[in-house]
Amino acid sequence: MDVKKVILTDDEMPRQWYNILADIKMNPPLGPDGKPISPEALAPVFPMNLIEQEVSTERWIDIPEPVLDVLRLWRPAPLIRATGLEKALDTPARIYYKYEGASPPGSHKPNTAVPQAYYNKEFGIKKMTTETGAGQWGSALSFACAQFGIECKVFMVRVSFDQKPYRKAMMQAWGGNCIASPSMETRAGRAALEKDPNTPGSLGIAISEAVEAAVTDETGQTRYGLGSVLNHVMLHQTIIGLEAKKQLEKIGEYPDIIIGCAGGGSNFAGIAFPYVLDKINGKQVEIYPVEPAACPTLTKAPFVYDHGDTAKYTPLLPMHSLGHAFVPPPFHAGGLRYHGMAPTVSQLADEGLITPKSVTQLDAYNAGILTTRTEGIIPAPETNHALAQVVAEAKQAKEEGKEKVILFNWSGHGLLDLGAYEKHLAGELKNYELSDEDMIESEKVFADFPKPQSLKSR
Amino acid sequence: MDVKKVILTDDEMPRQWYNILADIKMNPPLGPDGKPISPEALAPVFPMNLIEQEVSTERWIDIPEPVLDVLRLWRPAPLIRATGLEKALDTPARIYYKYEGASPPGSHKPNTAVPQAYYNKEFGIKKMTTETGAGQWGSALSFACAQFGIECKVFMVRVSFDQKPYRKAMMQAWGGNCIASPSMETRAGRAALEKDPNTPGSLGIAISEAVEAAVTDETGQTRYGLGSVLNHVMLHQTIIGLEAKKQLEKIGEYPDIIIGCAGGGSNFAGIAFPYVLDKINGKQVEIYPVEPAACPTLTKAPFVYDHGDTAKYTPLLPMHSLGHAFVPPPFHAGGLRYHGMAPTVSQLADEGLITPKSVTQLDAYNAGILTTRTEGIIPAPETNHALAQVVAEAKQAKEEGKEKVILFNWSGHGLLDLGAYEKHLAGELKNYELSDEDMIESEKVFADFPKPQSLKSR
Repeated sequence: MDVKKVILTDDEMPRQWYNILADIKMNPPLGPDGKPISPEALAPVFPMNLIEQEVSTERWIDIPEPVLDVLRLWRPAPLIRATGLEKALDTPARIYYKYEGASPPGSHKPNTAVPQAYYNKEFGIKKMTTETGAGQWGSALSFACAQFGIECKVFMVRVSFDQKPYRKAMMQAWGGNCIASPSMETRAGRAALEKDPNTPGSLGIAISEAVEAAVTDETGQTRYGLGSVLNHVMLHQTIIGLEAKKQLEKIGEYPDIIIGCAGGGSNFAGIAFPYVLDKINGKQVEIYPVEPAACPTLTKAPFVYDHGDTAKYTPLLPMHSLGHAFVPPPFHAGGLRYHGMAPTVSQLADEGLITPKSVTQLDAYNAGILTTRTEGIIPAPETNHALAQVVAEAKQAKEEGKEKVILFNWSGHGLLDLGAYEKHLAGELKNYELSDEDMIESEKVFADFPKPQSLKSR
Repeated sequence: MDVKKVILTDDEMPRQWYNILADIKMNPPLGPDGKPISPEALAPVFPMNLIEQEVSTERWIDIPEPVLDVLRLWRPAPLIRATGLEKALDTPARIYYKYEGASPPGSHKPNTAVPQAYYNKEFGIKKMTTETGAGQWGSALSFACAQFGIECKVFMVRVSFDQKPYRKAMMQAWGGNCIASPSMETRAGRAALEKDPNTPGSLGIAISEAVEAAVTDETGQTRYGLGSVLNHVMLHQTIIGLEAKKQLEKIGEYPDIIIGCAGGGSNFAGIAFPYVLDKINGKQVEIYPVEPAACPTLTKAPFVYDHGDTAKYTPLLPMHSLGHAFVPPPFHAGGLRYHGMAPTVSQLADEGLITPKSVTQLDAYNAGILTTRTEGIIPAPETNHALAQVVAEAKQAKEEGKEKVILFNWSGHGLLDLGAYEKHLAGELKNYELSDEDMIESEKVFADFPKPQSLKSR
């Protein structure tokens, strides 16, 4: 059991993704008329091969060889034991993590960006559009498009575009075209600028711009890519958990607790879904998605039908939502600043198969600094949220005197988020929590929408 | 031969470093009196266990277990075949690289920072001081000191300190204390500020401050650490080349050409020295250190005795030098902005065992962008210099129709150097070359020093 790291050879890399739609019941997405939408209705937005994956209920889906060829650059990712953190916490718990920061853009996002670019290319698409907030997803898709020789256009939320010039440079290095949103290039962008020429922009507007740019492209060879929330994105991320299972099996371990931070849900789903399958099959395991207290989708918001974007371009999705017009307080973890939660993750929470947690910004950054100094790697701000929960569980294991095995997903490194660390070390970060009044207000937007059914998968 | 990546297990990690001092003859370092200095004379600067390593002529030196435990976080580093770059260049050459960017600070520097921190800790040292230019070395030593629970103080050249606040934040995240140099904390710093209160600082002054801060510490428990140039630094980096040899052997390859960028020499030495041993033993292999045309230590400057720092605190070292007061033109590759070259690397060049090359800034960045788009990883600016030579060799292999095997050292990622990429993509970078007049002027400083002997190791 005394290992620092478990690696897999290229031959041991998973050859199939795990599709949780084979094992749980889901409410369907709804169109503007309140009726379930057909897959074909999404054809102007996504290539048909990805839409098929989005609605597939096959349990195992083959990973195409050209996708594996790109993933091999940094996968299989190592499973590392956090011995330094264990020691600092003097805990009997054994803490393991999957390290996703070794990908070229530094996060787990390329796990889906690469297959998305591949399937678009296969379908004859020449250009992909997307939005990005903090920049992780836009970087990942720029990287992936470069690997398959297709164009990439990224609408980046204005406030981040201005504050983080290096993210734009990063996308440009891969040949991506990154512009500030709202822009003058789309109707949605022009409308937003007309309303407020100095608007900082929002993820909602940027999504609207990216979708519009894809569907209005006259060549018909442009499609949109989304970095989280959708079923096929969760599917692609399961390679993380599938690798982790193989690695833990090699050293005879099985986790008692699985932890991942949750914004749109893809990083959590990546490590958790293969274990959710075990749980559905009767295995005892606790699974915790961890979100910021300032954006408490799963822990405080209801399970409803709501739009994925502010401009209401997307279908109604069955999910925990703070309301599609919700703007989170200015905490520093861009990847967790989303009003909704992946329908699959929402469904699992609704059924009690997973147990959502929330942590404060200061607890997150304190756990991040402790981990940086004891484990050596500077975590992404999103990872810090998972770490706060890991630290809490390790302390509880100590109190209880139990040798628990904790597995968490280290979603990425924080080398492009050092400004937030600097503020934290200078004592300039604070906690935000939402009041009940704030939530009642933000949730008014979905009051008139249909309600999802309560379904039980087991 | 059709592999993308060769990995080694933890068990296959080298357990010994290769010490080239066993196989080549060297001119000794000289004291202020022009006579060889005794190891003991260095005791106020370095701990005795590292000084012993500095002068050892044992061929193989054991890597301590606690050092291996930390290195295991990211080592063994993968050997990757640059298939995308090969394809883009349509070359018959097979190009392999060791990727050193997966270390927590993102470069090869921790390979020596970790053992340096370990040996200092073992010797009872409580605090290390050092200097840093662009920030790679200061980050690496901060990281390493955190792993062994010792303090770290970094004097960072003022101009970089102001231009790169994130580097400071990075060191702080690991608990390092980073201040701008020149500072008011040392005599050398105060003198520099008195001369010019608005000085941008220089690596030379920062070295002087760090050495002074170590030797004047009244507790006697502070020592200085250097990130390149010295024999023990080269020794620690040989783990790169030793891993590469094992990896290439696994797939039945032996390199025709080995390439590494060279500033102080440690990144080049890391990949090259184990192969220099083969060459000394009769093996046919071309070995190219690549330096910037704007700082052409090996390719243009003479092999002389000179100081390692501007303030002349260090012993006289036998090396290729542009003069200890030389300030390079403002090209963007901080790790290559050094007036001298490691004595071991200088000796090998003097004997013709290695063949120095130089490349321009624009060739370097163009190769970096090509590689980013075809291989996926954004290289450090220093790595770009190696890449320019790799591209040239791959093109020549195509012209000659030869299936050459090229191995190079990918010294780190460029995620903290995206500003330079942005400038390059905007067409704002240019080439610098030194005129003969510039060199004649800068080399006056060592005119009166003793001259090294011409030695032949084989």
